[in-house]
Amino acid sequence: MNTTSMFLRLINRTRQIYPINSISFQSAGCRCSSAYAASVPQIAKERETFQDAWKGIIDNLTTNKKFTQLPELGSWVKKVLEYNVKGGKKIRGITTVLAYELFEKPENVTEEMVRLARVAGWCTEMLQAYLIMNDDIMDGSSTRRGVPCWYRMPDVGLGAINDAILVYGSIYEILKIYFGKAKEYADILDIFNEALLYTSMGQHLDYAMAHRNKQDYSLFTTERYYSIVKYKTSYYSIKLPVVLGLILTQNRQNAPIEDIEGICFEIGKLFQIQDDFMDCFGNETVTGKKGTDIQEGKCSWLAVNALQRCDEAQRKLFAQNYASKNTDDVASIKRLYEDLQLPKLYKEQEDEIHSGILKKINALPSSTSPAIFFKLLDMIFKRSY
Amino acid sequence: MNTTSMFLRLINRTRQIYPINSISFQSAGCRCSSAYAASVPQIAKERETFQDAWKGIIDNLTTNKKFTQLPELGSWVKKVLEYNVKGGKKIRGITTVLAYELFEKPENVTEEMVRLARVAGWCTEMLQAYLIMNDDIMDGSSTRRGVPCWYRMPDVGLGAINDAILVYGSIYEILKIYFGKAKEYADILDIFNEALLYTSMGQHLDYAMAHRNKQDYSLFTTERYYSIVKYKTSYYSIKLPVVLGLILTQNRQNAPIEDIEGICFEIGKLFQIQDDFMDCFGNETVTGKKGTDIQEGKCSWLAVNALQRCDEAQRKLFAQNYASKNTDDVASIKRLYEDLQLPKLYKEQEDEIHSGILKKINALPSSTSPAIFFKLLDMIFKRSY
Repeated sequence: MNTTSMFLRLINRTRQIYPINSISFQSAGCRCSSAYAASVPQIAKERETFQDAWKGIIDNLTTNKKFTQLPELGSWVKKVLEYNVKGGKKIRGITTVLAYELFEKPENVTEEMVRLARVAGWCTEMLQAYLIMNDDIMDGSSTRRGVPCWYRMPDVGLGAINDAILVYGSIYEILKIYFGKAKEYADILDIFNEALLYTSMGQHLDYAMAHRNKQDYSLFTTERYYSIVKYKTSYYSIKLPVVLGLILTQNRQNAPIEDIEGICFEIGKLFQIQDDFMDCFGNETVTGKKGTDIQEGKCSWLAVNALQRCDEAQRKLFAQNYASKNTDDVASIKRLYEDLQLPKLYKEQEDEIHSGILKKINALPSSTSPAIFFKLLDMIFKRSY
Repeated sequence: MNTTSMFLRLINRTRQIYPINSISFQSAGCRCSSAYAASVPQIAKERETFQDAWKGIIDNLTTNKKFTQLPELGSWVKKVLEYNVKGGKKIRGITTVLAYELFEKPENVTEEMVRLARVAGWCTEMLQAYLIMNDDIMDGSSTRRGVPCWYRMPDVGLGAINDAILVYGSIYEILKIYFGKAKEYADILDIFNEALLYTSMGQHLDYAMAHRNKQDYSLFTTERYYSIVKYKTSYYSIKLPVVLGLILTQNRQNAPIEDIEGICFEIGKLFQIQDDFMDCFGNETVTGKKGTDIQEGKCSWLAVNALQRCDEAQRKLFAQNYASKNTDDVASIKRLYEDLQLPKLYKEQEDEIHSGILKKINALPSSTSPAIFFKLLDMIFKRSY
């Protein structure tokens, strides 16, 4: 099957899963994301269906015999999970479901398997919850997804570190309940373990960069920035859900895993650059969190690009005011970013990386589903939260 | 094979593995721990051999391709592992090795398998490191194993939360490297996951008990105390290493897993009661840590038993001074414990639980190795750190 016919089959498949009234694309030879723009409401629909699956998963977990011996434990875990996994875009979870549906041959997609893909998707969301619960403590953040960070809740405090472990442990309990007897069980555990290890490696680089000798910004380079992004974001946010969906299919043996991984890393870049930009320039009522990257002295996309564009006076101002919790210092860094026209550069780079990804998708071997990557781009490109 | 001949075979087996000059026991019909007292130096020998395996495991991990892309990550993980996994009694790790050797039929024990059991044993020690790194942050502890807690090191701080995740992620990477292709791989991952979930459940109960309404001690009962102990200690400290050793054998299919679990839970009780006692009455230069149970208001064995023995005035004094960081308050609680003769009660209860465990071991079905439990008791009973 050549690329074009594969693509047409996938378009058709997408229509079946998410009936679209007016799907259109410029030419079957030129696969591009805009072809899928009309499917955005359908992603919203999957988000709703995906959301509906959550209650049953929590119930199945907390009525499990591990919890029923001490019922208050079940109630507590339920409370922790409900608070910390709610909200957000659910990109990771929905991607898992879409990846399963779009990588799998249509005739093999069963309702039961889609249901299981949703469970796996919720586990990626729980991993995200675990990571941000810890991250918020380390960064001293105040809000997340529009509500106070868990560790800031009355009677929680540093007990949040253990509550995060409860969330993490629950992932594996859920995987055991739903996939314990599946032939792909060990592979599923492996991909979660890999995601955890890489993310913690990336978090360390991120943290170490922010806590090194305050005046030395020699490591704030684009190359290093992207390598941190690969570790701390791309693995768990993009590769994990995409490959997890693939593992659930019966087609994975022949998948060009390196090409898939490469595209995942590029999409991860786009995702992290947006995150960094919104940490400073996002609307808090939309993003749901107060940015702390400037205060924490993070090696963010904004900091790296500011340093590349600074004159000597601006560099001095940067070094004096960066990594400070003082409101005036933070404001002056933000002004510097504006003076250096970083918002404009951001828009240009967002478009450039987006085009680069489209090229990579077009170059995929004909046996691979491009649709999942278009969907992912639809969810991520030009997002405002 | 009946119990007696099984026992004799195991005694013999133990001699082969750890040549003992003067092993003696009162009667083959009455299996008792003292029969193994002479093997304590041999446990020390295994501790040494076990210790020697560590360097190779770290090297294998950090020269892995996941780390070589950014060499500083390998150096950092090595540093974190060396600092946090060193010291301590290594009871969990050594138990894993002994459990493998003593549950397995002698003719099946190979050098390669013992080497792998040591790797698995080191993974239980890494799980312990992960848990105490977090625990020390939550409890605000200052020292551990005679050195400052990791989060108190310069340039670490709350980054220790992520460093703990690095340790945890490394466990699974090591398991993947050494056991990834073994038929028991998924079972090994499962037993670690189970241990993590139960421990975090126990930690929550422990933390919640310490942070509830300060004057209400109605939940400080023996029953509840033991149920917390089962979750927070017995699973990961005793059941995990014992069952992990068993999983590595070719004999596990017929093992009476419920009886084994039951004995593990009893040994876990003994272990935790000792820990609680030493938190207050241990010699800091021997235990390597400053106790914080009184300051943290923990539901400890001492607190539970004090409340059972208090008269009205003493109960008032307890409520007024417990869960306070003030040095005088802590001292007055310690005096109360002494007035109530808890050190004497501790010795009595330690002996009583020890005898109860011996009875349980004697009641094991004849197919089961008792030797591992005797060894465990040898390592734990009357320990001073």
